[in-house]
Amino acid sequence: MTRGAARPTGEAFDVLPVAVDAMGGDRAPDEIVAGARQVAEDGTIGVLLVGLEGAMGDTGDLPLLHCTEVIGMDDDAGQGVRRKKDSSLVRAAEAVRDGKAMAMVSAGNTGATMASALLRMGRLPGVIRPAIATPIPDLKKEHPTVMLDAGANAEATVPMLLQFAQMGAAYSTERYGVARPRVALLSIGEEKSKGTSLVKEAHAVLAKGGHGNFDFVGNVEGRDFFEDQADVIVTDGFTGNVALKTLEGTLRFLMSTLTEILGRPEVADAAGTLLPHLIPLATKLDPESTGGAMLLGVDGVCVISHGSSTSVAMVNAITVAHDVAVRGLVADIASSVRPPAGA
Amino acid sequence: MTRGAARPTGEAFDVLPVAVDAMGGDRAPDEIVAGARQVAEDGTIGVLLVGLEGAMGDTGDLPLLHCTEVIGMDDDAGQGVRRKKDSSLVRAAEAVRDGKAMAMVSAGNTGATMASALLRMGRLPGVIRPAIATPIPDLKKEHPTVMLDAGANAEATVPMLLQFAQMGAAYSTERYGVARPRVALLSIGEEKSKGTSLVKEAHAVLAKGGHGNFDFVGNVEGRDFFEDQADVIVTDGFTGNVALKTLEGTLRFLMSTLTEILGRPEVADAAGTLLPHLIPLATKLDPESTGGAMLLGVDGVCVISHGSSTSVAMVNAITVAHDVAVRGLVADIASSVRPPAGA
Repeated sequence: MTRGAARPTGEAFDVLPVAVDAMGGDRAPDEIVAGARQVAEDGTIGVLLVGLEGAMGDTGDLPLLHCTEVIGMDDDAGQGVRRKKDSSLVRAAEAVRDGKAMAMVSAGNTGATMASALLRMGRLPGVIRPAIATPIPDLKKEHPTVMLDAGANAEATVPMLLQFAQMGAAYSTERYGVARPRVALLSIGEEKSKGTSLVKEAHAVLAKGGHGNFDFVGNVEGRDFFEDQADVIVTDGFTGNVALKTLEGTLRFLMSTLTEILGRPEVADAAGTLLPHLIPLATKLDPESTGGAMLLGVDGVCVISHGSSTSVAMVNAITVAHDVAVRGLVADIASSVRPPAGA
Repeated sequence: MTRGAARPTGEAFDVLPVAVDAMGGDRAPDEIVAGARQVAEDGTIGVLLVGLEGAMGDTGDLPLLHCTEVIGMDDDAGQGVRRKKDSSLVRAAEAVRDGKAMAMVSAGNTGATMASALLRMGRLPGVIRPAIATPIPDLKKEHPTVMLDAGANAEATVPMLLQFAQMGAAYSTERYGVARPRVALLSIGEEKSKGTSLVKEAHAVLAKGGHGNFDFVGNVEGRDFFEDQADVIVTDGFTGNVALKTLEGTLRFLMSTLTEILGRPEVADAAGTLLPHLIPLATKLDPESTGGAMLLGVDGVCVISHGSSTSVAMVNAITVAHDVAVRGLVADIASSVRPPAGA
C-alpha cells in the first residue's frame, strides 16, 4: 500500500496546487517566482510557493508555504535532507505526501531534491530504486526520447534496468502519448554480445519480452540519440549521466561557438538573414523547453529542473508536473513495475 | 622482455615503412591506397601496403605485402583473427612484430584491429590490458584531449584505470608535447564521493600521487570535454565509448542540421558570407583531421582510423603512426606503466 492512499483523489486531486521550491536554482528566487506567477495568472494550474519568509520577492497572490531553511546547491544531499527538516525542498515533498500538493518542482540541488522526494514521498511498492528520466530532443520524431537513469543511481543491477524500462515506457506513454514505446539499451555496439556483463544480461532478460506495454528494440549507441532509434533509452545512472552531460556540453559548445561567429561585425548582415532559420533549432534543443527531468518510482510527481532554469523553464516544468499528475502518471508507473518474468 | 627486442633499432628502425591495411574501412581500398600513395610520394615516410593481390587498384610504386583473406567490418573480431591468419590485418600486425614495419594503420574492423595487434605484437610487460586512446579536439587549448579507454575493454579495474592514466599521460607527452599532463577521471560530479565504486577507488589511488609524470586533477564530467579541464581523461571502455559516440553523434547531428539550413535557397548569399568563418571550425572538429585513435599497451604502434576514413584521414593517420613510432612511443609507454604505489 502506498502512503498516498489517503490523499485526495479525482476532482479533489485535480485542484491541488503544484508545490514549487522558490529557493532552488542558480536564478532563485526571482526567476522561479516569476515563472510560478506566470503559470498561476494563466488560471488553470494552481501553484504553492515554498520558501523563506520575506526572501521570495514579490510573490503576488500566490499561496505561500514558509520554511526556515534552504539546502544549498553544493550541500551534501543526504545530510541536507536529514538535518534541514524545515527546508523548502523537504517541505515541498511533504506537501505532496500530505495531499496538499499534486506535484513538486525544484531547480535546486538535484541530489537533495531526489533525497527529499524519496524520503518524504517514499518509493512505490515493488520499485527497487527510483530513476531520473530526462527528455532528449530528437528532431527526427515528434516527441523527445526519454533516457533513464540520468544519475539517480551510480550503479545498477539487471532487475533495476528492467524496471527502468517499464517505468520509462509508462512515462513515454503518459507524457508523450507513445502507445507502445520502443525501448533500447545503451551499449557500445548493436550486437547483443556487446557491452558490460550487466548490459548483456539485461539484454537477454529484455529480449524475452512480456515485460509490459513496450517493444524491446535491442542496443543503441551514443551516436543514436538523434537518430529516431528508440522512444526510451535505458542505462545505469553513471553512464546515463555521462552521456547526458556529454550531449549537453557538446551542444552548448557548438551553439556558443556559433553565436560567437555570428556576432562578428563582418558577418552582421548574413547573421541577420540566418537567425530566423537558426532560432527554431536552438529552441528545440534548449533544455529549458523540455520541462525538466522527472524522478520516476517515488510515490508522487517530482520534477527536477535544470539549475540554470529561467522563468520560461519554470513555466514548462510546472505545466509538465501538473499534466502528468492529473493524468495519473504515478498510478501508471506503479502498475507498470513488475518482477522479472523468470523470477 | 618484449618480443620486439630483436627488432631493428635506431636508424634501421627509422627507415622502416608504416604497414597500411589496404582492405579496411568503408572506402577501402580506393581512399586508403590514395592516402598511402600521397604519403609515400612526399618522400619522408615509407608505406607498405597490405592487401589482396589484384584488388587494391592502382598502387603505383608502393611496396606490397599480399594476403589472401580479409576480415570484414562486421566479422567477429576474435574469430576473424583466429581463422583468417592470412588476412590483411593479421599480416600488417605481423609485419610490425617481425621488424618489417615500424607501425600499422587500419580503418577496418576496430575489434579485429585490436585483436590482431594484441595477439601478434603482444602486450608490453606489466600492461594488464591495452586501451584505445582517442584525441578529442578542445578549441580552448592548443592540443586535443586524450580520452582512454574508448572501447577496448567493456569493463575495467582500479589497476587498469591507473595504467590508463600512465599510458595516456605518456601519449599526451609524446604526441602533443605536453610536459606534465593533467590527468582526470570521468565521473558524474567533481567531488571524490561521486561515481561508481570503481571510480571512487581509482580516485583515491590516483590522488595519492607518485604514479608518474603527470598531475591528477580529480574528476571531470561529460560537460567538460571542451572546457580545457584536462589533457588526459581516463575511464573504462564502456563509458568512454558511450561518451565518445555521444560527442561525435551530437557534433554530426548539429553540423548536418546546420548544413541543411545553409543550403536553403533563401539564405544562399548569407551562407556564402559565413562559410569562410565556419569551415575552420568544422575542420578542427572533424575526426578525419585528428589522425585516428591509438591502441596503447601493445608492443608496437597501432593506429585505428575511423571506418569512414578518406585519403585525407589516411594521410594524417600514417603520419601520426610514423611520428610517434620514430619518437619511441612504445618504449615510453613501457617505462610509464608501473604497479600502483601501494601494491
